[in-house]
Amino acid sequence: MKTAQPDSQAALVASQDVTGAKVYSRNHEQVGDIGHLMIDQHSGKVAYAVMTFGGFLGMGEEEQAIPWNSLRYDAGLDGYVTDITPEQLQNAPERPRGWERDRQYGTRAHDHFGVPYYW
Amino acid sequence: MKTAQPDSQAALVASQDVTGAKVYSRNHEQVGDIGHLMIDQHSGKVAYAVMTFGGFLGMGEEEQAIPWNSLRYDAGLDGYVTDITPEQLQNAPERPRGWERDRQYGTRAHDHFGVPYYW
Repeated sequence: MKTAQPDSQAALVASQDVTGAKVYSRNHEQVGDIGHLMIDQHSGKVAYAVMTFGGFLGMGEEEQAIPWNSLRYDAGLDGYVTDITPEQLQNAPERPRGWERDRQYGTRAHDHFGVPYYW
Repeated sequence: MKTAQPDSQAALVASQDVTGAKVYSRNHEQVGDIGHLMIDQHSGKVAYAVMTFGGFLGMGEEEQAIPWNSLRYDAGLDGYVTDITPEQLQNAPERPRGWERDRQYGTRAHDHFGVPYYW
């Protein structure tokens, strides 16, 4: 992971600099923006970035929860890069009511995007 | 820790519901508000809540970084409770320039407030 910081072990970023940040595909095409974060109340771990995107291969403006573990900061782009594909986004598991406390949804979502669980 | 959620292991909260939340002392007196969060870019862990407070035992409006590990959510108060005392706040280590990537500051701050390191 590239970061702007000399000591990446201790690089902190303000929440307001994450929300609104741009998300890019592996090929550095812009996919969307981070709208807000979902934070595990107990551990303080950011679980998901809720991304707004539109016009990504014909998709309309939409909102999708992306596991934080699928994003990595890229200092050169001043944004986040994800390996998630348009197909993965289109086929992402739907968020059921109460998804914020639904570990089964969390498991499905992380499995779908192929990234480690946040918990 | 009390939470509003039946399954506290999986309770997620939106970042915009944390920023602006009220912080209370152990005696449930309001201490301040959470202004924003500082997030570890690498791990996705919330490291600090930057709290704005004023009028707390005569202190003026100030901003202080509080380890996330010193806060616990209280559903009854719909806010966060901390065991941090006014004395601890007043004597908190100053944040040096570049504190966002200064592990020594992080160590001092967590030791000062008597809570586990976030890393």
